[in-house]
This record gives sequence, structure tokens and C-alpha cells, in this order.
Amino acid sequence: MTNKDWSSRFAHRASELKESEVRALFAVVNRVNEDGTPQVISLAGGMPYVQALSTDIISEVQARLLREKGGVALQYGGGQGNDTLRKQITEIMKVEGIKADVDNIVVTTGSQSGLDLLSKMFLDRGNVVLVESPSYVGALGVFKSYQADIEHVYTDDYGMNPEALKAKIVELEALGKRIKFLYIVPNFSNPTGYVLPLERRKQIIDIATEHDILIVEDDPYGLLYFDEAPPASMISLGDTENIVYLGSFSKTFAPGFRTGWVHAPKDIKRLLVLANEAAVLSPSEFNQLTISEYLKHTDWKAQLNTFRNIYRDRRDVMLSALDDYLPELKKTKTAGGFFTWLQLPEHVNSKLMLPQAVEHGVAYTPGTAFYADGRGKHELRLSFSYPTTDYIHKGIKLLSETIRNYK
Amino acid sequence: MTNKDWSSRFAHRASELKESEVRALFAVVNRVNEDGTPQVISLAGGMPYVQALSTDIISEVQARLLREKGGVALQYGGGQGNDTLRKQITEIMKVEGIKADVDNIVVTTGSQSGLDLLSKMFLDRGNVVLVESPSYVGALGVFKSYQADIEHVYTDDYGMNPEALKAKIVELEALGKRIKFLYIVPNFSNPTGYVLPLERRKQIIDIATEHDILIVEDDPYGLLYFDEAPPASMISLGDTENIVYLGSFSKTFAPGFRTGWVHAPKDIKRLLVLANEAAVLSPSEFNQLTISEYLKHTDWKAQLNTFRNIYRDRRDVMLSALDDYLPELKKTKTAGGFFTWLQLPEHVNSKLMLPQAVEHGVAYTPGTAFYADGRGKHELRLSFSYPTTDYIHKGIKLLSETIRNYK
Repeated sequence: MTNKDWSSRFAHRASELKESEVRALFAVVNRVNEDGTPQVISLAGGMPYVQALSTDIISEVQARLLREKGGVALQYGGGQGNDTLRKQITEIMKVEGIKADVDNIVVTTGSQSGLDLLSKMFLDRGNVVLVESPSYVGALGVFKSYQADIEHVYTDDYGMNPEALKAKIVELEALGKRIKFLYIVPNFSNPTGYVLPLERRKQIIDIATEHDILIVEDDPYGLLYFDEAPPASMISLGDTENIVYLGSFSKTFAPGFRTGWVHAPKDIKRLLVLANEAAVLSPSEFNQLTISEYLKHTDWKAQLNTFRNIYRDRRDVMLSALDDYLPELKKTKTAGGFFTWLQLPEHVNSKLMLPQAVEHGVAYTPGTAFYADGRGKHELRLSFSYPTTDYIHKGIKLLSETIRNYK
Repeated sequence: MTNKDWSSRFAHRASELKESEVRALFAVVNRVNEDGTPQVISLAGGMPYVQALSTDIISEVQARLLREKGGVALQYGGGQGNDTLRKQITEIMKVEGIKADVDNIVVTTGSQSGLDLLSKMFLDRGNVVLVESPSYVGALGVFKSYQADIEHVYTDDYGMNPEALKAKIVELEALGKRIKFLYIVPNFSNPTGYVLPLERRKQIIDIATEHDILIVEDDPYGLLYFDEAPPASMISLGDTENIVYLGSFSKTFAPGFRTGWVHAPKDIKRLLVLANEAAVLSPSEFNQLTISEYLKHTDWKAQLNTFRNIYRDRRDVMLSALDDYLPELKKTKTAGGFFTWLQLPEHVNSKLMLPQAVEHGVAYTPGTAFYADGRGKHELRLSFSYPTTDYIHKGIKLLSETIRNYK
């Protein structure tokens, strides 16, 4: 058996698919002790606490589904997604104040697949995507995989700065760069936890409209607010012809079903359906109908409240532990979603510190993961969504010790 | 609300994502009468007969899964796919005589996603993919979507012709073309139903090895033989370093779970995992574990026999109806899978005839769908997998009338 080097045959874009430098380390993070307790407290991943779901209820929903609609649920579906689920999605979007049209919705294999398909449709090599600083690591990865130039827009404590956005666009236009879209997570952003204020949403929409730039609004956390709902979503403030909206059932229900959606202007939607078919033929009909029946037969809003209560408690414990153990460091006072963002002292490099942290029993995601330009060395992301409050408290204590002992 | 033409912003590759010309017609095909019977007998689609599965058994499997492993099944998984399922896949591949390595397997969102990710990894604009004539429409679509040049290799009644393959490669090499891989469905090919003979498998492997061309062997139907098993798969005959193998649970279990797999040489596998993560983060853990538990707790080989018996009966009825009603036309004497391939008289254009056929109450897929070069006008694909024998018999009768009345 020869060991052939096929990598020399890969497409040019393949060079942009890189293994994360912290990947090997995260394998260690998943190790458990003999009694099942974790060897390392992970504040790194963004996993929802699916243990808060009732598996009995899901079993019932699925048993009924198989009994009543088994022939449909087990079969191939359509490339745009199940009609009933798309109708229900418009109702969920209505809860967020969005007037959605069922014809403009395409169901995708998680909203990650929506990002992948939009990237495939829009991005030629060297095209620009504008993003927050920092921005969601999974989005940066997929934009890069289509050889886009990622341009970070200056982002302050209130999210993307509209003045900076305008300056960046003018600068890029002067350079003759082709800006394909602006990608933004206005609600409880990943990784920062920021909420973009209403006024900024309007300003950013105006700037994008003026410069004829498509906005891609990614909103996985909008319904997971802890106190009050975030400001109106950008698609409800702007023109649905200028904004693509991505939604997900991974945080309000369960990521194991890999089901999200895209609401897009008609001609984008039309191509998106074809791209979806080329990529997966159709999204899983079984998973779509599980969600559809779950929405129909259960009190999903009560479940949403359960999630909110759990995450609010965990957020409280994380922020107060940070106040206790690392009072001098700046962090986001997160009001929803999964994350807070921590500013480190200038002498501490979050990527170099990670092995020391893991050795000491705690993991986080280094800030560098969320920038395409090498920044983020003195920042890190902490997730409070998955570990219980005891672990969060202990994890922050261990993190504070790691930072103080950093060498 | 302005109606903006975003299509002018699409990437170059977007122009290759085209709506099928028969798409609108197929919407009509799905219409049912008030009593639930179909208005048109469809011999067009390649849907498995999932009604042959026991929904009770699947419900039980899923209820146990949620009870015992709910926290895993509902969560994000890994980019390579579930470890236990990958181990079980090696056992299924062993049934087909393949020595598979669990480390070389990547689970994908149906094998369509495997094709998409491989295409993304390998295909720059203008790179060549070699395929059978005709070849699977879904593969042609995804190769085109990455702007590949599709080169059909002469295919006779026994599948791809090795001499023609050699000549084609020499011709393309002389033109300086970059051949990225050879895509082939050796068992009960879609659309022709051909089985590639053992000797040809070996010859094609030798030619590919000699010219340093990767083989992508797609095998969704290998276990669905009606009499005897097809010859050894190409990956078991050749060097696993030179052959990528695609498998699927869509035909042996259910397409509604969108779960397939790729067995690939190490460095292709490594990049495939990253491409999988960029596309969907992870394939549906719930669906993977449903299949894993189904394989573990049920007699899946008995179910496979049930499928074989059903499809054999339907094949018998279709071929004998073709003998009765269209004895003068050449067709594949299919020995497994879902399809037969019909040669029409020279004056009959299968694409132009389709509206007449639908009007008369029967649908098929025109041959042109399976060629990237406009051929196939006097051929068509018939599927016997989904309709019951009564409908198949009546459908062939209606087709024969349509052909005789063609104008």
C-alpha cells in the first residue's frame, strides 16, 4: 500500500481549511475521570444544556410522528424544507417581531449550512465579507474556505461601530474591493455577548443600504434573553429585500437535529434551494418533522423559559465569580445567550496560556479564534451554557489562578 | 420595498446552479386525487419504499436512545461522525467484502454531502471529473456547481468501457487538462442499472493507478441485489490509498435520516473532517445514533431481505410489462438497485415527450438529465423502487401508449 500525497491535488480553496491550533488540546478537555466527572472544567464550547429537555416528551412526539406520518418522515423531502415547519418558523419569527414570508424560508442542516451555502453562492476568491471584531469562529471558517477576504470592522462595548463601518466601506471601495455582504450577530453575539443597540441597528442598515451591501443577520440567541428582549431584529427594522436572516433550533431546542433556516430575498432564496439540493438533496425530513410536531404538541415557550432560567443562573454565577476572583479584568455583563468575553492583562497571551489552564483543570477559547487577522491574544471567550454552577464557580477560580501564575 | 437583483452579486460558480427544466413538471406529478390516489404514476424519482420499515421498531429504538443516551443524541457531535457508528460501518462494509478502517471513515449528511465536500476539496474551475455515460444526476449537479469540466467516458451495456477510459485520459492529458478524479457507480448504476463486471473493475483500477487518478466509488445499491451479490467492490480490489468509497443508509434504511459516509485515504479524510465541520459543524448526532442503535438492536439483515424481495417483485413486473407493451425497445435487465434504462426510437425525444406522458398519467426522468453534454434525448430512466406492482404495470402501459402517440 503506497501512501500517496493526494493533498497536492486539492483545490486552491483547500489551503484555507486549516486545523485549529487548539484542536488537539480540546481532545484532552473531553477526558473524564473513572467516576464520570470531567478531568477539565470546560468553559470553552458553546453547547446548549440539552439535559434540560424532557426526553419522554421527545420520545412521545417522535412515536406519534412515526405512527401518523412515518412514510413522509423517513423519506427524502424537498430542497426548500418542509412546508409545515416553514409555516411554524414564520410564527417563531413573529415572536421576535419579524414579518416573515413562508416562501422566503429555506430550511438548512443547521444554520451553519445556511452560512456555507450563502458563501458558496456569493463568494469568489478575494471578495470581501465584513464582520464584527471579534466574530463567530464558525462563520470565519466557512468564509475563509471560499477564499474570501475577511475584514473586521471596529467593534466597541456596544457592538459594531457604525462610523467605523462607514469608514471601512469607503476605504475598501476606494481600493476597488468587492464587498459581498456584512455578517453580524446583533443579539448576544458569539463570542462577546454584546447586544447591538437599536440606534446602531438602524444606522448600520442605512449605511448598508446606501452602499448597496447585503446584510446577513445571524440570530441563534435572540430568544434566549435573561431579563428583557433585545431590540428589534435588523430584518424587522430594514427591508427584507436587503437582509438575509439566519435562525436556528440548536439553542431553543436541540443541536442534535441539525436544523436551522434562512429567510432570504426571493432570488437569493431560489438559488439557495438549488445549492441546498446540491449539498444534501434535502435537509433531514425526520428531524424537521420532529421539530414541527414538538412545536405543535408541546409548550415550547415554557421550555424556552426553562432554558432562560438555567442560563441566567449560570451567567449570574460566572459574572459574580469573575467579580470575586478577577475583579480587575473587564468582561461583558452578558444579558442573554451563552458567552462572556474577558479582557486579559497585556502580558498574558490567551493562546499560550491555554495549555497551562488545561493542565490546571480549566479550558476556555482563546480570543485569536475569533479574528481572521491574528488579534485576540489578550482576550478569551467563556461559555456558561453547559457546566453546572458549581463547575462554573470552580472553573473561574482555576482560571484566576492560571492567570496569576501565567509564565 | 425594492425588489433588488442580488443575482448580479453571486459568485461565478452560482451560474452553474441551474433549475432543472423538468422541475415544474415534477411538481404536477406529486398531485393526488381526493381519495389520496396519485393523479400521475411516477416512475421518475428514486425513492426507497420506506413503508416496508417497521415504525414501531424505530420508535422503540429511538425511545431507548433518548432514555439511555439522550444527552449525547441531542447534542452537537464531532466532525468525523460518531465513533460507534463508524465502527458499525466497518462491519457493514465487511459484508460487502471491504476491509475498512474506522479511522478512514467520515460520516456525512447523506452521501450527497460527501460528494459535495469532496468536490469542494478537489475541484478548481476547469478541473476534469471523469464519469460514466450516463451518470448520476445529483453527482453531475454538484461537480458542475464547483465549475468542473465533466467528461463522459464511453459506456456500453457492461458499464464504463476501459479502452475508452484509457483513450479519454490520454486525450485529456495531451490537452493539458487536470483530471481530479473518476466518479463511478459500479453496482446497479443510477440511472442505467448496469453492473460493472469484475474484469473491468480491475482494468479501470489499473488504468487509474497508472495515470495517478483518484477513483471515487459510489455504492448506495451494492447490498440491494436481487439474485447474487455484485462483483467485489473496487475499493476491495484496489489500494485503499487510491480509492474513495461512498456509502449510504438512505437505501438500506431510510433517507429521512440523511446519513451516509465516506471512506478515504488519510490525508483526504483529514481535510474532509474540516470541510464537514465548515459545512454543518457535525452531522446529526440524533440520526447517527438512531442508525447505530437500529443496527445494534434489530435484525437489519432481515430488513434488507425484505427490501430485496419487494424490489425484486417490482423489477419483475416492470421488466415483464416492458416486454409486453414495448417489446421492441432495449432496456437494462436490472439485477439490483432501483432503475432500468430504456432506449427510445430515434424519432422520440424523451424531454419533449415528458409533458405528453404526464398529461397521459405517467412520469419518468428524461435521459438528458444524466448527461452534462446534451445527450440522452432518446433514452429515459424508469424507477421501480417506490410504486406498487399494480401502478408499475399500469404506468408502463401508459408509457407505451405515450410513446406510440408521440408527436
